[in-house]
Amino acid sequence: MIIIGEKINGAIPSTAKAIAAKDAEFIKNLAIKQAEAGADFIDVCASVDDDIELETMKWLIDIVQDAVDTPIAVDSPNVYTCIESIKYCNKPGLFNSVSLEGDKVDVAFKAIADTKWECVALLNSDKGIPKTAKDRLDVFADLMVKVKEYNIDPSRMHIDPLIEMLCTSEDGIQMVTEVIRGIKAQYPTIHVTGAVSNISFNLPARRIANQAFAVLAMSAGMDSFILDPLNKDMMGMLFATEAMMGEDEYCMEYIGAFREGIFVK
Amino acid sequence: MIIIGEKINGAIPSTAKAIAAKDAEFIKNLAIKQAEAGADFIDVCASVDDDIELETMKWLIDIVQDAVDTPIAVDSPNVYTCIESIKYCNKPGLFNSVSLEGDKVDVAFKAIADTKWECVALLNSDKGIPKTAKDRLDVFADLMVKVKEYNIDPSRMHIDPLIEMLCTSEDGIQMVTEVIRGIKAQYPTIHVTGAVSNISFNLPARRIANQAFAVLAMSAGMDSFILDPLNKDMMGMLFATEAMMGEDEYCMEYIGAFREGIFVK
Repeated sequence: MIIIGEKINGAIPSTAKAIAAKDAEFIKNLAIKQAEAGADFIDVCASVDDDIELETMKWLIDIVQDAVDTPIAVDSPNVYTCIESIKYCNKPGLFNSVSLEGDKVDVAFKAIADTKWECVALLNSDKGIPKTAKDRLDVFADLMVKVKEYNIDPSRMHIDPLIEMLCTSEDGIQMVTEVIRGIKAQYPTIHVTGAVSNISFNLPARRIANQAFAVLAMSAGMDSFILDPLNKDMMGMLFATEAMMGEDEYCMEYIGAFREGIFVK
Repeated sequence: MIIIGEKINGAIPSTAKAIAAKDAEFIKNLAIKQAEAGADFIDVCASVDDDIELETMKWLIDIVQDAVDTPIAVDSPNVYTCIESIKYCNKPGLFNSVSLEGDKVDVAFKAIADTKWECVALLNSDKGIPKTAKDRLDVFADLMVKVKEYNIDPSRMHIDPLIEMLCTSEDGIQMVTEVIRGIKAQYPTIHVTGAVSNISFNLPARRIANQAFAVLAMSAGMDSFILDPLNKDMMGMLFATEAMMGEDEYCMEYIGAFREGIFVK
């Protein structure tokens, strides 16, 4: 499984405050803690006004890569910000994200095609967020035409099927798990990712709902998780689920992660 | 979902101590707390020497039914103890358990056929615990011949596919989930039950493994759980999973259970 540490994100109030105050120590600490907790990528999202987004990204990226060796996920809804931001990174990481809106895919894939950067792709298009599993898988099919066109190996792609809040759903997570299964059935080496905590918007006891969702999404084939790696219960739940799925013989990784303090009793 | 509260069991050291000391208040308190937490049955298992098992069962049953209205699960590996114990109960509950060993099924089904008692059936036979999903489903088929013979409605049965410890498994829980799916596919109204915490024997952070297993087992079709209903995280995980499965429209039950204090933030 792949953990994308989500904590350096200006949409989180405490991080926004640190960004505004140029509190480098706070950012550095978040990078180190997430790396120690086993994050495979450290997500960096400025969430500031357009005119200072790029300089803020550079400032954040410099702090993170001075502090840890973990690759960076450059995170912006603006594909051009991502393209500029990867130039500041001293090693390939994760381009987060593209979508089928406008020319985003072409612009981004052109920039990363001949690199080792991996890439998150959201399954929305100019028509918005598809409402059915079939429509999302159609958008996925369109995306994979582009992936092939730019000669990007599917294993470099992290497909985000778009996790929406559970509380407005009549059918639970069936649609999203159907999309996850459909994607993995077609491309076994591709990654399926998502922002786990989206599921619990407007629910009480969000951590519980997030954990239950992560277990079920992983069992459907999700193998890349945008989440807080400092949440020890959540990390334990992911290791436990891998073991339940028969991907951790004799639970050695689960036991090892417990011994390393990744999760707690 | 059906919750079978497991705490009044002489195999648990604190309960054993209370049974030995004839501490009625301790037992009463366990009954009340489990009922308040939403248990559908209060399991009563003496776990004492044979010569005092029946009198101990009677003592426990009297305390529980004086304290709460929740039906009792009479729990003994000795089918005759169960048959005698149900005579002390003032309303139908759960016969826990029979198996395909010897004449247990015939003896038990004869006793409960014309009652409203529900019944747990373990999928082991005189040949021991079957090692493959196919073999367990074969035992299940044999069992269902008897269920039909005694004219017991399948909805009164709680099939226990036998949850074994994960840490000695190479294939995770695939075998047990295959058995669960196979049972529910054939008899949609039947219940599938199990002692959730068996999965985590010899593992660290057992509560984490138990929760991950419960989520996956429920998604496979398990709908009856022998567990500690005072474990608020576990109870929350079950309510969250029902919502994820689309069985709790707009999450109203999840939110309601949270408000009632069944689980915590």
